Amino acid sequence: MEIRSQYSIIKSKDKKYTNSTILLEKGKLSYEWALNTMKIISKIREKYERSKPLSSFNLGFCLHITKETSVLLMAAKALGANISICSANPLSIQEDVVEFLKYNEINVFATKNQTKKEFFNNIIKVINTNPNIITDDGAELHSIAHNRKIKSIIGGTEETTSGILRILSLQSNNKLNYAIIGVNEAKTKHLFDNRYGTGQSIIDGLLRTLGILIAGKHFVVSGYGWVGKGVSSSLRGLGAKVTITEVDPIKALEAHLDGFNVQRLKDVLPNGDCFITCTGQRDVISKKDFSLMKNGVFLANAGHFDVEIDIHYLQSQDKFPKQMRPHLECYNINGKKIHLIAKGRVINLIAGEGNASEVMDLSFANQLLSILYIAENYKNLKKKLYEVPKEIDDQVAQLALSAFGIKIDKLSQRQIDYYYNNSSL
Amino acid sequence: MEIRSQYSIIKSKDKKYTNSTILLEKGKLSYEWALNTMKIISKIREKYERSKPLSSFNLGFCLHITKETSVLLMAAKALGANISICSANPLSIQEDVVEFLKYNEINVFATKNQTKKEFFNNIIKVINTNPNIITDDGAELHSIAHNRKIKSIIGGTEETTSGILRILSLQSNNKLNYAIIGVNEAKTKHLFDNRYGTGQSIIDGLLRTLGILIAGKHFVVSGYGWVGKGVSSSLRGLGAKVTITEVDPIKALEAHLDGFNVQRLKDVLPNGDCFITCTGQRDVISKKDFSLMKNGVFLANAGHFDVEIDIHYLQSQDKFPKQMRPHLECYNINGKKIHLIAKGRVINLIAGEGNASEVMDLSFANQLLSILYIAENYKNLKKKLYEVPKEIDDQVAQLALSAFGIKIDKLSQRQIDYYYNNSSL
Amino acid sequence: MEIRSQYSIIKSKDKKYTNSTILLEKGKLSYEWALNTMKIISKIREKYERSKPLSSFNLGFCLHITKETSVLLMAAKALGANISICSANPLSIQEDVVEFLKYNEINVFATKNQTKKEFFNNIIKVINTNPNIITDDGAELHSIAHNRKIKSIIGGTEETTSGILRILSLQSNNKLNYAIIGVNEAKTKHLFDNRYGTGQSIIDGLLRTLGILIAGKHFVVSGYGWVGKGVSSSLRGLGAKVTITEVDPIKALEAHLDGFNVQRLKDVLPNGDCFITCTGQRDVISKKDFSLMKNGVFLANAGHFDVEIDIHYLQSQDKFPKQMRPHLECYNINGKKIHLIAKGRVINLIAGEGNASEVMDLSFANQLLSILYIAENYKNLKKKLYEVPKEIDDQVAQLALSAFGIKIDKLSQRQIDYYYNNSSL
Amino acid sequence: MEIRSQYSIIKSKDKKYTNSTILLEKGKLSYEWALNTMKIISKIREKYERSKPLSSFNLGFCLHITKETSVLLMAAKALGANISICSANPLSIQEDVVEFLKYNEINVFATKNQTKKEFFNNIIKVINTNPNIITDDGAELHSIAHNRKIKSIIGGTEETTSGILRILSLQSNNKLNYAIIGVNEAKTKHLFDNRYGTGQSIIDGLLRTLGILIAGKHFVVSGYGWVGKGVSSSLRGLGAKVTITEVDPIKALEAHLDGFNVQRLKDVLPNGDCFITCTGQRDVISKKDFSLMKNGVFLANAGHFDVEIDIHYLQSQDKFPKQMRPHLECYNINGKKIHLIAKGRVINLIAGEGNASEVMDLSFANQLLSILYIAENYKNLKKKLYEVPKEIDDQVAQLALSAFGIKIDKLSQRQIDYYYNNSSL
Repeated sequence: MEIRSQYSIIKSKDKKYTNSTILLEKGKLSYEWALNTMKIISKIREKYERSKPLSSFNLGFCLHITKETSVLLMAAKALGANISICSANPLSIQEDVVEFLKYNEINVFATKNQTKKEFFNNIIKVINTNPNIITDDGAELHSIAHNRKIKSIIGGTEETTSGILRILSLQSNNKLNYAIIGVNEAKTKHLFDNRYGTGQSIIDGLLRTLGILIAGKHFVVSGYGWVGKGVSSSLRGLGAKVTITEVDPIKALEAHLDGFNVQRLKDVLPNGDCFITCTGQRDVISKKDFSLMKNGVFLANAGHFDVEIDIHYLQSQDKFPKQMRPHLECYNINGKKIHLIAKGRVINLIAGEGNASEVMDLSFANQLLSILYIAENYKNLKKKLYEVPKEIDDQVAQLALSAFGIKIDKLSQRQIDYYYNNSSL
Repeated sequence: MEIRSQYSIIKSKDKKYTNSTILLEKGKLSYEWALNTMKIISKIREKYERSKPLSSFNLGFCLHITKETSVLLMAAKALGANISICSANPLSIQEDVVEFLKYNEINVFATKNQTKKEFFNNIIKVINTNPNIITDDGAELHSIAHNRKIKSIIGGTEETTSGILRILSLQSNNKLNYAIIGVNEAKTKHLFDNRYGTGQSIIDGLLRTLGILIAGKHFVVSGYGWVGKGVSSSLRGLGAKVTITEVDPIKALEAHLDGFNVQRLKDVLPNGDCFITCTGQRDVISKKDFSLMKNGVFLANAGHFDVEIDIHYLQSQDKFPKQMRPHLECYNINGKKIHLIAKGRVINLIAGEGNASEVMDLSFANQLLSILYIAENYKNLKKKLYEVPKEIDDQVAQLALSAFGIKIDKLSQRQIDYYYNNSSL
Repeated sequence: MEIRSQYSIIKSKDKKYTNSTILLEKGKLSYEWALNTMKIISKIREKYERSKPLSSFNLGFCLHITKETSVLLMAAKALGANISICSANPLSIQEDVVEFLKYNEINVFATKNQTKKEFFNNIIKVINTNPNIITDDGAELHSIAHNRKIKSIIGGTEETTSGILRILSLQSNNKLNYAIIGVNEAKTKHLFDNRYGTGQSIIDGLLRTLGILIAGKHFVVSGYGWVGKGVSSSLRGLGAKVTITEVDPIKALEAHLDGFNVQRLKDVLPNGDCFITCTGQRDVISKKDFSLMKNGVFLANAGHFDVEIDIHYLQSQDKFPKQMRPHLECYNINGKKIHLIAKGRVINLIAGEGNASEVMDLSFANQLLSILYIAENYKNLKKKLYEVPKEIDDQVAQLALSAFGIKIDKLSQRQIDYYYNNSSL
Repeated sequence: MEIRSQYSIIKSKDKKYTNSTILLEKGKLSYEWALNTMKIISKIREKYERSKPLSSFNLGFCLHITKETSVLLMAAKALGANISICSANPLSIQEDVVEFLKYNEINVFATKNQTKKEFFNNIIKVINTNPNIITDDGAELHSIAHNRKIKSIIGGTEETTSGILRILSLQSNNKLNYAIIGVNEAKTKHLFDNRYGTGQSIIDGLLRTLGILIAGKHFVVSGYGWVGKGVSSSLRGLGAKVTITEVDPIKALEAHLDGFNVQRLKDVLPNGDCFITCTGQRDVISKKDFSLMKNGVFLANAGHFDVEIDIHYLQSQDKFPKQMRPHLECYNINGKKIHLIAKGRVINLIAGEGNASEVMDLSFANQLLSILYIAENYKNLKKKLYEVPKEIDDQVAQLALSAFGIKIDKLSQRQIDYYYNNSSL
């Protein structure tokens, strides 16, 4: 009998359903749901499932253990790989996904709420499987693999910018032991995830936390990078008025010509209904600013760290803010209400659902194709950091289009010739 | 000592906090939160608080007992009225609001999960306070007041279209005993709540239920009335492609010239990623349609009744749909996945938060000003159904603008003269 | 030999091409061009061309003699009618169209630059053809037909609001001799021509006159009726910032919730780069306002009369404005440059091309179907002013959709029943 | 006496106004008009007018002699330079501007309709003024200066990509005699002119040529580079439906997530009302495509060369296309009407007004600041091609914002420190 609904299960008192059975069924649903939207990974899987190009490879992963990760790993497994994984972050482990992966014979070394030491030991357990290719999110696995001088490794990939910085440091000291492909620089990753993914998930966070009407409200967005562009465009699309603050004159000029109001923060303080910081900078909204804001104003941060809004000042002025709604506190500063969303931490992850599976799909497709690339070409790769090859980047885009049912044109030979004749002397 | 956080309270094991204390504190926060956004009601309160124009009046209400209703009642009380209220719907009673209203000496005749009989008895209790003006949502209170021939009543208001129909029936039989103002026809109500309120809360429902990327998805919106216009515009603003289906050629032509794709439902069935019905009609998506849809498609209804999508057919084909996420079931129809949101019931109320407080503010401002109008003019009113007077409608808009800090121009006498000279013979 | 290019003709010195031959060829091209976009009229023509329902009718027209009018008349002729036409305005006569119509055996009584007396005589000539149905633009023809008590007339139509006012005056004095259908009230006319047609043609006028970059500019639009809505939306779509000024609080609230900035004119005077009046009112921008504007500001009027901007004040302050570009004068007011477009006359007609043929097509389709309606039903019509029947309105929309290749859904009988059961008691 | 209107002048028969006087007055107006919108150049002029940093320099220019160029030259003159100019293109000389420049003691070596030989001689005349800094558009002046080994030159600038290619060729052969700054790579040039400038001027060209309603029309835009992005966004903003065709999968994916329809050209051929090529490629619309298009379709090219649409095929099929309107020909291909705009040449320059002055302002501000940079730093510059220094790029953006009255934020020292600590190891 197939179990059809997690909710009926959870309410069930039938003895034969243990906790792990329930988690497994939930994990199956999570996987199935993610699979439904991650069509690029599915396309790659379809393409290579028969030839099993990863069949002689041990893969070691250090990633957030989420439903999207389960789709990546199941695809790699279908391509023939042996897989072990530890968690890139003690907090991000989804237990249902862990059960699902174990059920599918993937080695998972991760437990919910693991200590720092357990976290480290789990990384070692992955190392001990003698992985051939390592996929990392933060370069912790790469770092330990280098310390321990693991011989089995023929190459690796890295997801994040901060991981890349650690790898560059190894490279500049001539200590890099294998080729690593940095996935973040792929156009199909960095051009898409902030603009479309984060842009939308900030809206999600705002709607869930506030439930206010966006139409007619005046939003002030600090920072007109990809995140700021994405969220400003979405807010305008929902009927909001948007003012941009910037420190970079070129980005400010873009915002102006895109039809947004551009002002200094201090000039727009009295007029904004909601302020959203997307800068990567500290102290964007600071001590001196709060007193100039409207009574009842909303503040949110979309940057990685909770340093963009001076929350310490707020806390120093009101030690017992009122919890108005989930993820929403109201500070009383000299009789004025200042609403802070998600304690100034990254709104789309805390108060919203984070990046949609479709966006993770683009990123993980780059990962999987980079793993395949290393498996095929490792003998010709040097011990250095590589960008994602342009052909992989293009292939991810092409597979994405194909997954969406979109066909595009191709250049004829005559057009290719024309291109080269007109671009060179 | 002021209680600062409901969440700390709820966790508290301190004996002195009884359950009703906790509810009261929660009710205070709910009121405070709603008050923060319902600035039109606050403006009316400010304007009349000193003169107390309702001081000799008993008001009887039959409304959904929500945080927004508490703002309306507290304002009416501040204007001098004695107030009693019963609930328009047994299910919509928010207990924290009940506690809060009682604490503020408003007679509340409502208990969570009350039976039909209790519901009726509670209406009688309101009747028994000898109300002078009655405000109703569905005409149940008006109906009983007429049956019992209550003499105290000098006039009333009605919120809904279906209530209006019952009142019209009384009027056509010459049985109407007092003047009633139908609030739904106010421009500041019907021009705004569907277009801006429902338009946004459908997006809210979609984001919470699905968590998918809206950009690039193909949405099919059936019906290009105010709801359809609102949601189509919002979806496009978030990067979606939108196709409209219509039966009214004039609305279809509007959709076309607004830049949307317009097709017959059957022609767009194979291409849509998500279908949203906003028609007020039955069987918009029916038996024959499901088999032509994409695998994995999403279906939602934004109409009042759950008759727009043929959910009975779906249920007949798959008796145990999988619960993929809250408010999301996946039906397996001949191997194809059909995802149904909120069981085909109105998505923005079930899966989203419903109309934002700002939208309720417009509606309740019409209610409050209509009550004041009756209090002042009842001697000149006939026993008939009235529309909201244009000056109240304009005043609500004017107060809304004022609440948003917006000033607008006024016609000079010379311009008024010009207008009349150019509009008449 | 077919003449292929008007430009080669005009340069030709070949004696055999007389002036009227050249005009005729130009008229053919104008007709052909208009025909290409006026697909609704063409659909009507196709539908009735065989049955020739106008074959026993004399039709008398008093319209602007433009390329779009030639498409209407040629269609009426194809349906069997005998046609005569005079010009609704001495200035709007296009001579090439006159030649084309004459060549096609339509009686044209109009000469370029005709005097008032010739204008009147030409109307009489149309009257003398004993028309059965009269189509008018301003009710001049109707007026004379009533004065002269023409017996042949069985009904008529009227295009304009001001014409309707004259007809209402006749009706209220019981002097109306035949049924007249007022075309302006058709939804497919008044819902579309201002919003889409005028909205775009104002942009056209701005681009031609100024050639400035619209992106980033701050436009101030006075009036948020259909014209104001259309042009604001288009300007925003081109990257402009838009502020709305209004006197009607409900329209102002709509503008606010549509995401526009709403202010009093006097508050936005120092910030606007370009001001556009669309109000139908006088003195919208007046004497006291100019001194508060930016140096170099642009002013345009989109209202019917040139009274919205106080051009007399401008002229009194600078008798010799500089002609900067066609339709653009620069006034020097106390050292400040004020640019006035099209002398404050309606910008889209003077500096742009006016309504696109597609918009005229909607209006003339209502005319043609109303003529057919009169021809078929005149025996049942009373001597009164009628609105365009809803079925004609719907038919025009349906034909428009059909012309654009769009198919829409139809209600099933079960849905029709549902509608009636849920809308009545 | 000041002349107030060019139009009155032109009609004047007063003997004392010679042709060149009329041109001079027209040139004054052209200059004044351009000056009104070119506020960045004016800001630079204001800043340096007193210190006259170019006072010991001879500047030689080879540019299109337009009203915008006159603003650049007058500013350089106000900064102290001696100036001579020849025309970058025999056809682009505006005679009124020539008269104006001469009147202002700028050496102009250019006559309308000059022959190739005169063109060459005029370049030599500029060379003979012993220029110190050379500003070129196409590298013709640089080329001859190198051939003749002119000693006076200390540096130069170049506007175009094709000019840069010629300079790179010199550089790779070690033949470059002085430093040259390539202006096209400045962000404030290439990020803005195509997206905002060309995007709008294509709309301008379409409106003037066709006069059709854009709302509801289906436009097919080939190429989603900056031009394609700009025009697609503007068309959507005016209510059009837009389909993108692309050969680059990453750009295609961007278009999809921006909400546009993405298809192969051949799949959308039967549905498009208007096709616009913006690719830089040849044969985008070719022989086999025309027969699949709608009757009455419109074709336009926005690319630099007239090779994107196969106009030779069209001409071979219909030797005498009808001239329907200015810049619009109708080809009859097997009974189907194909409308070609501007003979397939770049629509925004031929049928529209080309880039708005505001866009030229950004480009010329980079030129002027680069000239100043060379004047100050030439002793430290090498004989190589330089990009525009980032500080100039930022300064142009800053001056642009300042000209638009926009102030932006600055990083504090603490923020600058934070930035460096978080970007490096």
